[in-house]
Amino acid sequence: MDKQSKIEPKVVTQIGFIVKDIGETTRSFAEFFGVDIPEINWTGEYKEAQQQYKGKPVESRAKQTFFEMENIQLELIEPDDGPSTWRDHLEQHGEGVHHIAFVVKDMKQTVKTLEGLNMPVIQKGEYQGGRYAYLDSFNQLKVMLELLEND
Amino acid sequence: MDKQSKIEPKVVTQIGFIVKDIGETTRSFAEFFGVDIPEINWTGEYKEAQQQYKGKPVESRAKQTFFEMENIQLELIEPDDGPSTWRDHLEQHGEGVHHIAFVVKDMKQTVKTLEGLNMPVIQKGEYQGGRYAYLDSFNQLKVMLELLEND
Repeated sequence: MDKQSKIEPKVVTQIGFIVKDIGETTRSFAEFFGVDIPEINWTGEYKEAQQQYKGKPVESRAKQTFFEMENIQLELIEPDDGPSTWRDHLEQHGEGVHHIAFVVKDMKQTVKTLEGLNMPVIQKGEYQGGRYAYLDSFNQLKVMLELLEND
Repeated sequence: MDKQSKIEPKVVTQIGFIVKDIGETTRSFAEFFGVDIPEINWTGEYKEAQQQYKGKPVESRAKQTFFEMENIQLELIEPDDGPSTWRDHLEQHGEGVHHIAFVVKDMKQTVKTLEGLNMPVIQKGEYQGGRYAYLDSFNQLKVMLELLEND
């Protein structure tokens, strides 16, 4: 067997949840973890995020917020009505865990490797200081992967 | 707002996945993460695990295996046909993420606190060196919690 990990480093930096009402769930998480209610922000507009879903430019966005554990970040995502992996998840599976994320050093090379394992990019975009790609890894890994690359 | 976290420490030690065919998914994970195929073991028999599901003793068991990331453990679980939260998840949601786990210092006190937040214990049992409890926290946290207490 090939003993090279297909993803490095093997650090799960984030667990991402799709939620219907981010205001309500953010209050619930803040109360549970004993922290101030964090800011909820929209993902970038198209001119900034240049998001693509299934290979096509889309205007779709989501509201998001974050909770820091000691070893990992929890992300809450409420999709808008436009086409996205977030909206798909909400419609097909309802609320719940959507992805686990890894920060990678070389997005292009990692995407190439993973596409070669039949994990196609389903959505990607830019954010301030980096970029993300969601890969459909469900058949192999039973969860979607998100790759993050920071400049 | 109450600024006390309801769970301490805020370390997600494990992400648990329900799978249909643990042999196949274990090979897939091992190949992906570039490691030897780990042992797959059954959870304990009743005399050892004393598992309870919805407050009643059950003989139900599962096959399980583990993959170590740098900061977290990934657990694969294939339930048997008996009643369990694992079997429920497979029947109601199919494969995918079932729980996130926290190691707590005082299981009884934490369970009492979380039951007071309408997160009832759905299943619990013993393992060598400790015990576990699954709590139905889906409404509040959009994922099931597992508490682990090690002796």
